[in-house]
Amino acid sequence: MTEETPIPTRWVGPIRVSGNAVEGEHQVPLATYESPLWPSVGRGARVSRQVEGGIQVTVVDDRMARSVLLVAPDAATAVAAAHATAERLADLQALVAAQSRFAKLIEVRPEIIGNLLYLRLAFTTGDASGHNMVTAAADAILADVLAHQPDLEYGSVSGNLCTDKKTSAVNGLLGRGKNVVAEIVIPADVVAKQLRTTAQRIVDLNARKNLLGGIAAGSLRTANAHYANMLLAFYLATGQDAANIVEGSQGITWAEARGQDLYFSCTLPNLIVGTVGNGKNLPVVEAALERLGCREDRAPGVNARRLAALIAASVLCGELSLLAAQTNPGELMAAHVRLERRNQA
Amino acid sequence: MTEETPIPTRWVGPIRVSGNAVEGEHQVPLATYESPLWPSVGRGARVSRQVEGGIQVTVVDDRMARSVLLVAPDAATAVAAAHATAERLADLQALVAAQSRFAKLIEVRPEIIGNLLYLRLAFTTGDASGHNMVTAAADAILADVLAHQPDLEYGSVSGNLCTDKKTSAVNGLLGRGKNVVAEIVIPADVVAKQLRTTAQRIVDLNARKNLLGGIAAGSLRTANAHYANMLLAFYLATGQDAANIVEGSQGITWAEARGQDLYFSCTLPNLIVGTVGNGKNLPVVEAALERLGCREDRAPGVNARRLAALIAASVLCGELSLLAAQTNPGELMAAHVRLERRNQA
Amino acid sequence: MTEETPIPTRWVGPIRVSGNAVEGEHQVPLATYESPLWPSVGRGARVSRQVEGGIQVTVVDDRMARSVLLVAPDAATAVAAAHATAERLADLQALVAAQSRFAKLIEVRPEIIGNLLYLRLAFTTGDASGHNMVTAAADAILADVLAHQPDLEYGSVSGNLCTDKKTSAVNGLLGRGKNVVAEIVIPADVVAKQLRTTAQRIVDLNARKNLLGGIAAGSLRTANAHYANMLLAFYLATGQDAANIVEGSQGITWAEARGQDLYFSCTLPNLIVGTVGNGKNLPVVEAALERLGCREDRAPGVNARRLAALIAASVLCGELSLLAAQTNPGELMAAHVRLERRNQA
Amino acid sequence: MTEETPIPTRWVGPIRVSGNAVEGEHQVPLATYESPLWPSVGRGARVSRQVEGGIQVTVVDDRMARSVLLVAPDAATAVAAAHATAERLADLQALVAAQSRFAKLIEVRPEIIGNLLYLRLAFTTGDASGHNMVTAAADAILADVLAHQPDLEYGSVSGNLCTDKKTSAVNGLLGRGKNVVAEIVIPADVVAKQLRTTAQRIVDLNARKNLLGGIAAGSLRTANAHYANMLLAFYLATGQDAANIVEGSQGITWAEARGQDLYFSCTLPNLIVGTVGNGKNLPVVEAALERLGCREDRAPGVNARRLAALIAASVLCGELSLLAAQTNPGELMAAHVRLERRNQA
Repeated sequence: MTEETPIPTRWVGPIRVSGNAVEGEHQVPLATYESPLWPSVGRGARVSRQVEGGIQVTVVDDRMARSVLLVAPDAATAVAAAHATAERLADLQALVAAQSRFAKLIEVRPEIIGNLLYLRLAFTTGDASGHNMVTAAADAILADVLAHQPDLEYGSVSGNLCTDKKTSAVNGLLGRGKNVVAEIVIPADVVAKQLRTTAQRIVDLNARKNLLGGIAAGSLRTANAHYANMLLAFYLATGQDAANIVEGSQGITWAEARGQDLYFSCTLPNLIVGTVGNGKNLPVVEAALERLGCREDRAPGVNARRLAALIAASVLCGELSLLAAQTNPGELMAAHVRLERRNQA
Repeated sequence: MTEETPIPTRWVGPIRVSGNAVEGEHQVPLATYESPLWPSVGRGARVSRQVEGGIQVTVVDDRMARSVLLVAPDAATAVAAAHATAERLADLQALVAAQSRFAKLIEVRPEIIGNLLYLRLAFTTGDASGHNMVTAAADAILADVLAHQPDLEYGSVSGNLCTDKKTSAVNGLLGRGKNVVAEIVIPADVVAKQLRTTAQRIVDLNARKNLLGGIAAGSLRTANAHYANMLLAFYLATGQDAANIVEGSQGITWAEARGQDLYFSCTLPNLIVGTVGNGKNLPVVEAALERLGCREDRAPGVNARRLAALIAASVLCGELSLLAAQTNPGELMAAHVRLERRNQA
Repeated sequence: MTEETPIPTRWVGPIRVSGNAVEGEHQVPLATYESPLWPSVGRGARVSRQVEGGIQVTVVDDRMARSVLLVAPDAATAVAAAHATAERLADLQALVAAQSRFAKLIEVRPEIIGNLLYLRLAFTTGDASGHNMVTAAADAILADVLAHQPDLEYGSVSGNLCTDKKTSAVNGLLGRGKNVVAEIVIPADVVAKQLRTTAQRIVDLNARKNLLGGIAAGSLRTANAHYANMLLAFYLATGQDAANIVEGSQGITWAEARGQDLYFSCTLPNLIVGTVGNGKNLPVVEAALERLGCREDRAPGVNARRLAALIAASVLCGELSLLAAQTNPGELMAAHVRLERRNQA
Repeated sequence: MTEETPIPTRWVGPIRVSGNAVEGEHQVPLATYESPLWPSVGRGARVSRQVEGGIQVTVVDDRMARSVLLVAPDAATAVAAAHATAERLADLQALVAAQSRFAKLIEVRPEIIGNLLYLRLAFTTGDASGHNMVTAAADAILADVLAHQPDLEYGSVSGNLCTDKKTSAVNGLLGRGKNVVAEIVIPADVVAKQLRTTAQRIVDLNARKNLLGGIAAGSLRTANAHYANMLLAFYLATGQDAANIVEGSQGITWAEARGQDLYFSCTLPNLIVGTVGNGKNLPVVEAALERLGCREDRAPGVNARRLAALIAASVLCGELSLLAAQTNPGELMAAHVRLERRNQA
């Protein structure tokens, strides 16, 4: 019997945003057990509303990937099969198109280790995050490759070079999900009044903590304070497969002092989200997506990129707020104590 | 105004378990939008019940960490401060003990980069996951170190060498959360009947996909198929801070053929979970923890380790089931289609 | 005044090889202070001569990369500049062709972090490893991009996304240097007689040590025992820039039991080597390259790929020999003691 | 028959140094095919001589490690064996002391994956880099553990958690070799005159290239421009096992603007070098070590740490010089062309 686990949820903001995927001021939903997250993102939203254009969000790329694994007798056979498959790209694209209205195959990339052939398949998937769409397409492509390459054997429909819900470098370097940059230039007086700090102190903290501290920790393509918190809360509120926060959290915060003003950015190369598919038809989720303006009648992919842009803006709000707090000794703990009390009241 | 996002939840199993933290047969709650997860974990649970002792779970270690960041004029000063602080370990332990009934400081580990001094503080935190407990302790220790080392300046209460909710090598190598191994030896006939595969095919797939595929993907201390799915669902159902699946997902699946039987294990070095604290007092969560037997009157930490053991067993169930499916061409997709239809019916 | 540091050097083998870059039996030069390396590679060479076709070597890819760094005011400008530059690919190719007889631009790949634009430029470079060739080309391309994109500023001629002589995932995933697979199938009796072990024991050791041990160590795209030793010795003997063993050592050993026989392979995605350029005209180096048959009058790149294939075969010899020794308790240390004594005699 | 590969070598400097391992002004030997390295390090040396105290070098730690691999039936047995071995630390230390005058066992650290037990053994090794010393000690410890733990089986004398000559996070986080920080504060006028740049431009380049570019490249505990070049050249000239530049190159450059002055540092956690042992008795090497003052009659380890300090100072010189050059468009290429011509003349 299916029950329900209710996650406390608040709409925060509005956040002011602009860019190539969404414009205007929008409240955002955050479902979380960690109630201090709401005022933290709220503070960032307040900052955004004091800046012309608010947070500028740029969607840089949009794709979904699945890697299949084939077993060859030796590397030479694997190389030959990779080349032959590359030449049949148009056939494979037709195969995918015949199977799905939305999935489009855009790249087949081989990787050979010993006698093993991994083919990393990249697709666009419209407004779906695309997990199932690309698995179905990979299944068909795998069968087709095996039919054309009798020397190969089935290895796996997923060879972990995709890679789904696991830390990796491949997703960042080759792309998986929406690649989004959120950025803002905050005047010195807003930094002082709203964030109680200075541009230079944010820049120094980002370098020492997110960049150097991350490097020292043996992080991988990760330099941020807490992207995972905002991602989890937004993903849950909008019916996403929130296990994808694993790769989603592999993003980079970069700040510069521009005179006394602060340039602050969050780069999120792997936002694996959609506005249709699994989980999106539950009433609460559907209402959330509608309120975010992500269920309009638009070209495939536009709603999903709008959603990704709003997520990236929310990440920036929470990241900025926490870093600002950590520039001041004792502020983080005091805020936590105060906010948890207030939220529990 | 706080609303709720209801996550579909089912109790799956029971899973048969044994080891140093939990014994017997226990159903487990999984809150997820991805309904195929339930029968997937359920299949693994069925396997566990056909093996004497079921899944053997060993809790190897239990700690929580926070790193503070101090700024020195140069490395020599940072080294001297690190040594002086190491000699004051007993004082710092007393400081922490005076502040909290449950937090105990067990290690102070310095890391020096140029003129920056990171102190990674490790604690036991009883039945709490310990995020706030160690932040409060770190705040106090930081103030104390600054008072004793006038040449140092405040850098940050968190220097990202902790590290929280971000991919890293440090958490696996130095420990953060419960370090748990779940393992099982499955007779050949159970592998054949319940999993429709063979021990050798699981071993080969694990090597080619989880180990080699993960290495090729540029993964970091990660070799598994989908730990994140089970972790997310269990964490949400039990009120955990589910953003900690980021490091939780950095675990290793290891399988061996023992004759025709299958040895199968999941090593999860970073399960950051608790049975008290934030989110644990919501009625649904409280009921879930009680049903799991994790709210008994026991020595501090015992309930939380029991919970971690049940989580690790659930991870093994889902991991085993998916890998078995992927040894058979087409099975994964067919199962997804069938299960999603059934669950939506 | 230039002096000389003489590195002890021996020609080892011959190694029997076949594949798409070199055929026949060839001795190989190893310059090293670690004299046990010679008999270790020699043992592998002996194995190769007892197998038909010997070590099969497949050159999978061949390219050299350099990344330039440009500073934009914001991400939107960076994206626009990346697109505009992609459309000018033919112009940039002509620019490179006008400057060098051998460098050919084959790919321009953007990566955007906040307001920063990294362009990773890939080239073929004939028989040169290509460090200077691609730096010169990058200089010209950088100037050209800056001329066409007045909103961008110079960041660096190298943005470390190349990346040269540093551990990374990017070189393996996107390619830099020769990507080479060396493999061999060794009959059970040769395994027993020459290597004093069995196929299964090699397979088990490789999985437990190179794959799992490497993963546990937080390695990155690295699963081998000691590629760096063979690479260093071969690079020095042939005038290579041996600092490139850093990325060269990021390779993967993969073994399978085929019945009682052993399939053994070394995948080396980043062999950055050449047969012309810096260091190649010293008399000893020139003689070594000639003896290896790598200074013949062939199409550009053929000599360098032949060299890379011989290097990969030598790596396999040494890797196989060490792993075989480590399957037997105490053998490694005893061999070291014996060999060092003999070599010093 | 042993031949020789002569590597062109020059003594560069002197470099002015101070700190806890070496004082004064010292020329350093660099053996390399890449002749532009000499003037590059030479420029850094010139800068050092214009600063009081020159480059301050701090040796933070000094150890050598080897990991053995044991196979247990299950994790519970592995944990029990790890605990039992920890309790026998004094016995194992005595065992090592009986075998070697210089090797001292300082730590035994277990890591458990499934049923596998890795013991990472850390030692001090006097003036030797210690490869063979720790292998011999590990052999003895392994035999002893197996004798006391009849449920365990031999896995490997090296389980790759050491790890030797391979990229990893473990060496940086747990230590292997000398952990050294070299740093300098350069007055603004010296930055301008000798390096033709400003402190802020160096700081910006380091952040954008070494930190961010490295993170984007999927580097691991690596943020520098070209440590490997200086390490290779110095290692070859002093008889080191230069394959250890693989981990040696995993270091971090960190710069700060202090007003108009430049704070510049290189942190090198894994300098695996010695002044006695393999390769150190060749006449040219012996002469080099003597000229560096590293063959004096001192307490064990002092000569080797002095050597490591000189290496770190040389790394700083070359790193500073290259970064300064890359702040100026076109300077790098022009310098290369000019220097190669001059050196070949």
